[in-house]
Amino acid sequence: MSVLSSHVRGGWVTPSAADTAGRPMHDAVTGEEVGRLATDGIDMAAVAEHGRRVGGPALRELSFHQRASLLKALAGYLREHREELYAVSARTGATKGDSKFDVDGGIGVLAAYASLGKRELPSAGVLLDGDLVPMSRGGTFVGQHVLTPLQGVAVQVNAYNFPCWGPLEKFAPAFLAGVPSIVKPASPTAFLTAELVRLIVDSGLLPDGALQFLAGSLTSSSGGDLFDHLTEQDLVSFTGSASTARRLRTHPVLSARAVRFTAEADSLNCSILGPDATPGTPEFDLYVTQLVTEMTVKAGQKCTAIRRAFVPAEQADAVVEAVRERLGQVVVGSPSDPEVTMGALAGLEQREEVRRSLKALTDAAEVAFGDPEHVAVRGGDAERGAFLSPVLLRGDADAAAVHEVEAFGPVSTVLPYTSTDEVIALAARGQGSLAGSVVTADPDFAREVVLGVAPWHGRLLVLDRDDAGESTGHGSPMPQLVHGGPGRAGGGEELGGLRGIAHHMQRSAVQASPDMLTVITGRWVPGSGRTVTDVHPFRKHLEDLRPGDTVVGGPRRVTEEDVEHFAEFTGDTFYAHLDAEAAAANPFFGERVAHGYLVVSFAAGLFVDPAPGPVLANFGVDNLRFLTPVRFGDELTITLTAKEISPRASAAYGEVRWDADVTNAAGDPVARYDVLTLVAKRSDQREGSRG
Amino acid sequence: MSVLSSHVRGGWVTPSAADTAGRPMHDAVTGEEVGRLATDGIDMAAVAEHGRRVGGPALRELSFHQRASLLKALAGYLREHREELYAVSARTGATKGDSKFDVDGGIGVLAAYASLGKRELPSAGVLLDGDLVPMSRGGTFVGQHVLTPLQGVAVQVNAYNFPCWGPLEKFAPAFLAGVPSIVKPASPTAFLTAELVRLIVDSGLLPDGALQFLAGSLTSSSGGDLFDHLTEQDLVSFTGSASTARRLRTHPVLSARAVRFTAEADSLNCSILGPDATPGTPEFDLYVTQLVTEMTVKAGQKCTAIRRAFVPAEQADAVVEAVRERLGQVVVGSPSDPEVTMGALAGLEQREEVRRSLKALTDAAEVAFGDPEHVAVRGGDAERGAFLSPVLLRGDADAAAVHEVEAFGPVSTVLPYTSTDEVIALAARGQGSLAGSVVTADPDFAREVVLGVAPWHGRLLVLDRDDAGESTGHGSPMPQLVHGGPGRAGGGEELGGLRGIAHHMQRSAVQASPDMLTVITGRWVPGSGRTVTDVHPFRKHLEDLRPGDTVVGGPRRVTEEDVEHFAEFTGDTFYAHLDAEAAAANPFFGERVAHGYLVVSFAAGLFVDPAPGPVLANFGVDNLRFLTPVRFGDELTITLTAKEISPRASAAYGEVRWDADVTNAAGDPVARYDVLTLVAKRSDQREGSRG
Repeated sequence: MSVLSSHVRGGWVTPSAADTAGRPMHDAVTGEEVGRLATDGIDMAAVAEHGRRVGGPALRELSFHQRASLLKALAGYLREHREELYAVSARTGATKGDSKFDVDGGIGVLAAYASLGKRELPSAGVLLDGDLVPMSRGGTFVGQHVLTPLQGVAVQVNAYNFPCWGPLEKFAPAFLAGVPSIVKPASPTAFLTAELVRLIVDSGLLPDGALQFLAGSLTSSSGGDLFDHLTEQDLVSFTGSASTARRLRTHPVLSARAVRFTAEADSLNCSILGPDATPGTPEFDLYVTQLVTEMTVKAGQKCTAIRRAFVPAEQADAVVEAVRERLGQVVVGSPSDPEVTMGALAGLEQREEVRRSLKALTDAAEVAFGDPEHVAVRGGDAERGAFLSPVLLRGDADAAAVHEVEAFGPVSTVLPYTSTDEVIALAARGQGSLAGSVVTADPDFAREVVLGVAPWHGRLLVLDRDDAGESTGHGSPMPQLVHGGPGRAGGGEELGGLRGIAHHMQRSAVQASPDMLTVITGRWVPGSGRTVTDVHPFRKHLEDLRPGDTVVGGPRRVTEEDVEHFAEFTGDTFYAHLDAEAAAANPFFGERVAHGYLVVSFAAGLFVDPAPGPVLANFGVDNLRFLTPVRFGDELTITLTAKEISPRASAAYGEVRWDADVTNAAGDPVARYDVLTLVAKRSDQREGSRG
Repeated sequence: MSVLSSHVRGGWVTPSAADTAGRPMHDAVTGEEVGRLATDGIDMAAVAEHGRRVGGPALRELSFHQRASLLKALAGYLREHREELYAVSARTGATKGDSKFDVDGGIGVLAAYASLGKRELPSAGVLLDGDLVPMSRGGTFVGQHVLTPLQGVAVQVNAYNFPCWGPLEKFAPAFLAGVPSIVKPASPTAFLTAELVRLIVDSGLLPDGALQFLAGSLTSSSGGDLFDHLTEQDLVSFTGSASTARRLRTHPVLSARAVRFTAEADSLNCSILGPDATPGTPEFDLYVTQLVTEMTVKAGQKCTAIRRAFVPAEQADAVVEAVRERLGQVVVGSPSDPEVTMGALAGLEQREEVRRSLKALTDAAEVAFGDPEHVAVRGGDAERGAFLSPVLLRGDADAAAVHEVEAFGPVSTVLPYTSTDEVIALAARGQGSLAGSVVTADPDFAREVVLGVAPWHGRLLVLDRDDAGESTGHGSPMPQLVHGGPGRAGGGEELGGLRGIAHHMQRSAVQASPDMLTVITGRWVPGSGRTVTDVHPFRKHLEDLRPGDTVVGGPRRVTEEDVEHFAEFTGDTFYAHLDAEAAAANPFFGERVAHGYLVVSFAAGLFVDPAPGPVLANFGVDNLRFLTPVRFGDELTITLTAKEISPRASAAYGEVRWDADVTNAAGDPVARYDVLTLVAKRSDQREGSRG
């Protein structure tokens, strides 16, 4: 059998080792060898350096929007070629449904990050983190947190259970952040990840060095240990067992150089049935269906699968009975057989490991369904294929083993509880989990349990009749939500939308004068200089506008007649505007004042340039605050300043955020807000000229 | 000499060890022993458990606002007693100015977190992280990240250089987050931290178990190692040397249980003089003054002090000369002498360590000022006191030692550079720093350097003539900004306003139906149920309002006359409202449409209940988006729903955030926004009845 090639330093490399060397991989269904893994002869220091010297600079040359476009294109390419991935995936023991979960799920992460990149990240300039921080009374000294991409490599050590989704969920946020990836697949299913990487390389979409692939150990007999060559600008994301996480975390170079390390480990996730969800309720059925799904999808080889099924003691019999009935319908066998509903484990070693764990568990729990040693196999080789029956246990929630021993396969344990406090305490005995679920129609129970167990969980699902139809389920990490959990689950965090990008960036607090900060961030900072020219900024196309471009309008006097007229016209006859006596009693006004909406309406009248031009629409207002009441006779002046200019890559216009500052004759701030407009590009610039 | 007492499990405990045992502490000025440190006999497991079982629950019983009030009271108490701290501080070698930096700075952190707690944290309910995450087309399934306090202890291992500020900057965010602290002082100056803790305990303000103090090793000969008893709910924040950080980080329990570990270590911080800042410019003088300040405040024992002073090669002579001149005016000696401007190091051991580092540095750099072995001492004992001359070095920027060896005292090295790219690369050779500064009046140079070195820095100051008057300086971490840096600086992050609180909490993604999420978070989620009653919600006092309380107003028809009248009245004659032909050409409208400000003005007219009542004012609007254009004849309906109700502890009112949803007759969304109001409490509830 051939040794898998690695893709490093811009090309495919097949290790010099003989084909009989290296670690073998096996077809999970037939047991036959499908290839070998070895990285002998690969210079690990040079791989890391290629990422840093070639991949990183190439990525940082691109804007967020350009990187997002590449992710979108890559998602499209892989979607076109997904049948090729499904075919290889079947050899990992995965059914078609399992393969879609893995392959389509991974493509979905690329697409989600592509969309997020275009929607929420700046088209140019620096990624800001949080609001401007006032640092001084006079306003000459301000602070702003910024995020800049780490200038190293993201070493991504993957688990065997998701050979496509796993690498893609780590790659997508790294790529969007501007950090090159070094992908290490897990041994048993590396041949599928290799196929994925082959497609990615063939797509020709990614810059050289943006993704390298090491098909084997990170320690090459002749090329050193990759971890020995990491620096403070690199980061490691690991998914796999808690014991490996522990070993990697304490690598001397990682600790000496404070290399960022994120771990996502298997955990003893729980699902809690509410006391209200008795047999016959929709929630009871949802609970049972979900439990069976979590046991059988990917043959239970999901880090997020339910291991501990907590049910009210009085429902334990009913739950066990209902789950047994459903499990009885599961057909185990070869993924190529259309009747099969549960495939094989990833390999015989993995099955042995599950059987060992089951032995430890059955000291504390009895088998309620399934035989760990035998299973009827449809269309597969029961001897050489890694098939295992789903196994439902029923245990004693006080036993230590049920909270500590994870059988990483189609195994769950039903555990009875008798009070809300008890089940919260029992959930915590998992010592940190990736995901938990509460199945109930009782909001108070849901609230108590969710807030009680949240410190031990990265994600919590409340499942009920209302959300069941659209719920993505207990076991599915979503790109918009954090994935990871404390303690046993690894203590790390991945995904979570923008958070997953920030994990690959350094947060720095920048302190400066407003003028300096405007230049550094590319966004106009209040307090910095304004440019008032003869040309009204509404007459400028997107490319001609600059942060700081300003128009000043007014003054306009606000009269009693204006306020009375506006009240009558709009129907807003709130007493503070019309009733002198009541207004005098108001703690903030003391006398009649103008409507806030009148103020912003007059302000628009003062800053708008009415003739057709590049400004297409005002699509919103942010952070409007009324700061000083407007009394009759007050004169308003509005100063409108372009703050942030964001071209859209695929549109003939972009967004412009304006700082609006309304003051009275005394110079007191009356209202401050951001006005959001769409502004056209110059007609000669409209064809994709901007990233 | 007596052994310092620890404050654990609700009381002061003096270790059973004889007074001659334990680690001695010395007066930095006179060399005399001031006490000993020992934790023999203290049961470390019980200390941790006291925090978890007593301190944690007591803190979590309090709201953020209540904890903030306690921090404020504590800041006030310590401010009243600060002279007591100054007196003890002098024995650490600190001048009065140094003591203020340490003591007043620490009190400032308490006050800043107290203020942040009241201003930015919810008065009740759960701390939300980020926005609602839509998870489904139909809207029945949504996500929200929440933060809940870790249910363990925060073990805070402090450095010797800031015996007051250090413990307080770690304690304040932990306390506000609801996590109890176990404070371990550094040995040389533990007697000052002990005095601080004595004052805190005497204040009687904190709940039992909220702060424990271990005056000595975390490993007690008879009581075990505290770290051995940590769990996944605990966290460790360490400030000190990089080598100790490395040792603690790899503690087997920390790695096995993924205990959160934050390190803040000394680093080789840089300050960069811009090429524009030639002698005679304000920036040149600012650079020199700042460098001398950073060398001499706390006798240079600041983790953030400038170690590498990068200057354009052609200015190196001038900088060295100017710094030498200023250093010549520094008076070293006893803090009790009013003429003294620089005190002693923390002890003789620390001085020996600095001298050792200086030996390594002087292989690569020459001494331009100061004699490492001798210094004239005013009013102190040159033999027994830990005095050291400020030492300015001038070195070769290519030498490795100047980027690697930190002399943790009044020592900096001037290093010449010749291009912007070079100085960015040189700064990175520090392998990660806490703070850096750029002193320049050239915004383009500032931008290039700041963005170039940001990946290696936690904080960056741009100093120029504009912000110098209000700048807090290179060496001052601020509570609103992150403190910490990558790599050599420890890889951790502290402070940063809300971020410092989040470090002590678990982030969990909660997925649920809108109704469930409303109950779980205490904040009304769009899509969940609304309560429409006979009573207009504007007639309800703060205590009577509930999330979901709703008023529906309308429909109101918008006519061409309305739009024309509004245009004339406000002066907002934008073509989209008045010019049919131009509006038809607009890509979003196609015909004349109503003003957005008219829509929100009419909406207010539809939802306002005008008579005097509990609603006192509309103080703002957030996240207003115009979603569907309003054409002539369209009818508007407004649905206003109470979303979030936030009583203010010390006011007769609170803030109510309303969801405003304007739709047309077809049910299309016309505008969505949040309306912000102030609503009075019931008169019988106004006297501090709410936390």
